[in-house]
Amino acid sequence: MSSQPESGSGRPDVLVHRLRSFALPFLALLRNHFAVLDPCTDSPDSPAHAFLARRAGHTRALVCVGPTPVTANDLRVLPSLRVVIGTSAGVDHIDLRECRRRGIAVTNAGAAFAEDVADYAVALLLDVLRRMSTADRYLREGLWLKNGDYPLGFKLGGKRVGIVGLGNIGYLVAKRLQPFSCDIAYNSRSKKPSFPFPHYSSVHDLAANSDVLILCCALTKETHHLINREVMTVLGDQGVIINVGRGGLIDEKELVQFLVRGKLGGAGLDVFENEPNVPKELFGLDNVVLSPHSAVITPESFEALGELTVSNLKAFFSNEPLSCLIQGE
Amino acid sequence: MSSQPESGSGRPDVLVHRLRSFALPFLALLRNHFAVLDPCTDSPDSPAHAFLARRAGHTRALVCVGPTPVTANDLRVLPSLRVVIGTSAGVDHIDLRECRRRGIAVTNAGAAFAEDVADYAVALLLDVLRRMSTADRYLREGLWLKNGDYPLGFKLGGKRVGIVGLGNIGYLVAKRLQPFSCDIAYNSRSKKPSFPFPHYSSVHDLAANSDVLILCCALTKETHHLINREVMTVLGDQGVIINVGRGGLIDEKELVQFLVRGKLGGAGLDVFENEPNVPKELFGLDNVVLSPHSAVITPESFEALGELTVSNLKAFFSNEPLSCLIQGE
Repeated sequence: MSSQPESGSGRPDVLVHRLRSFALPFLALLRNHFAVLDPCTDSPDSPAHAFLARRAGHTRALVCVGPTPVTANDLRVLPSLRVVIGTSAGVDHIDLRECRRRGIAVTNAGAAFAEDVADYAVALLLDVLRRMSTADRYLREGLWLKNGDYPLGFKLGGKRVGIVGLGNIGYLVAKRLQPFSCDIAYNSRSKKPSFPFPHYSSVHDLAANSDVLILCCALTKETHHLINREVMTVLGDQGVIINVGRGGLIDEKELVQFLVRGKLGGAGLDVFENEPNVPKELFGLDNVVLSPHSAVITPESFEALGELTVSNLKAFFSNEPLSCLIQGE
Repeated sequence: MSSQPESGSGRPDVLVHRLRSFALPFLALLRNHFAVLDPCTDSPDSPAHAFLARRAGHTRALVCVGPTPVTANDLRVLPSLRVVIGTSAGVDHIDLRECRRRGIAVTNAGAAFAEDVADYAVALLLDVLRRMSTADRYLREGLWLKNGDYPLGFKLGGKRVGIVGLGNIGYLVAKRLQPFSCDIAYNSRSKKPSFPFPHYSSVHDLAANSDVLILCCALTKETHHLINREVMTVLGDQGVIINVGRGGLIDEKELVQFLVRGKLGGAGLDVFENEPNVPKELFGLDNVVLSPHSAVITPESFEALGELTVSNLKAFFSNEPLSCLIQGE
């Protein structure tokens, strides 16, 4: 503890790294425990990078807010950095290779948001199958009275649900779907012996044996456009895709074509390739539920994440083990 | 078997009783097993009641389609009637008192639709809390791009959920909510020793100790306007009401006032007091999800209901026990 550089306040320095468009809801909580450097508020008129170069040379800990990129270029001006505390489930915006080379530990939001994402995946699936958002629009337009009953949706029970990626989120999705009597299977790099459902080593084979795919995996070079034309083709024209991972997991142009041409049964999309841009072709489709990257966020989870972040920073400054470690020093 | 009146086909007569606006999706299945009398198709130009009086005097079994009323007046022209096979979960549209007096057995859809209703209750709750239908509209109006992120919803986990009515549906709702880590309690006439959650004998007390009420009970004289001003007041201005029972369970005028004035947190409403009329004051509210009495219906459940109906009719004509009996002969 005594060797760490500290600000004049006696509290350890923590750099809050964020795009100006992302607020950190628990900034006040951080300030209770640490000397927070935040380029967006401390130096609003100068470029963040210049501020880092000037002020953050001794900073050992960085809190990365949401999907703010942490590039090799950012890391270059932070020679003392030893830990990046991620505040999202995915870490594809952090240059993990450079962190590994430099011996910088990286953590993510872990299970703090996993429950919210899993809840949302189930909600999107129910919404697409039972057509709730669409029916809500139908009622608000006065069409129930004018045109009569709305077409039936589909039952969740008995559907073959393929979970793509079996980390915290995928596991919690499966747990939630069990009482709905779904037939669950999953795809992940390795079979999980403790997870009592069929494992498919290829997404293609999982899709061929599923009515629904739920994408819960991280976006990496390997998973970019994992859901491509071939996978959608074998999923079939009654198949449903739920994406609570990242937009880049799906070849979005192909997805739009499949949906517009009726070659897929439906989709529930919380993420898109080029957010906040959403393909306009989807706006007219009633078998699609569109959502503004909301799966991961509730105030209750922000509170839990704030607590996780503080406890992880305290652990770091006390040389104790970190929670939710993605890669160590 | 030999004593029952039969049509010329040798198959037992079954009367299909329905409003012209309700189709029976498994009519063809019934015709495979029974001689079906259907006033709407057999005598489309004459009043159904006159047809019944003329043709159904010997009919022993009636299939009541959806919420079609079975009144004492209908029953008067059916002197041989011994069973009413309901095809909905609720039976408040059937004159149970007159059936009891006449010794006519009544069945309902039982568990055939209970799963669908329970699924829908969970879906409505997730939708209201996480604001999915509202966010979907936000995206379709192009507002994500224009106005930025959509306000956060709320986490389901940790919410105190009060289930009103613990029949098939209430039980299945509880089973589904358990993996979401909700705190479940319930209200029903009697405590169910096998159901491991706190029981409240009054809805008022349940509401005072809940964040969410889910209405799963039948509509009777006793439950009419069960959710009144007092109950909504103690549920509080963050409270959420989900109704998959019947519109009449709630004092709808009061509900609208509570929602419009921000005295309730939100509502997910699949049923209304005067369907298909929906209070227009609700159309502008973002904390409300509106649904056209869809909870109970999926094609998969219609198929299951068709099988239940045929097996119950066969049981009746064979003097075997009926499934889903509401009241016996």
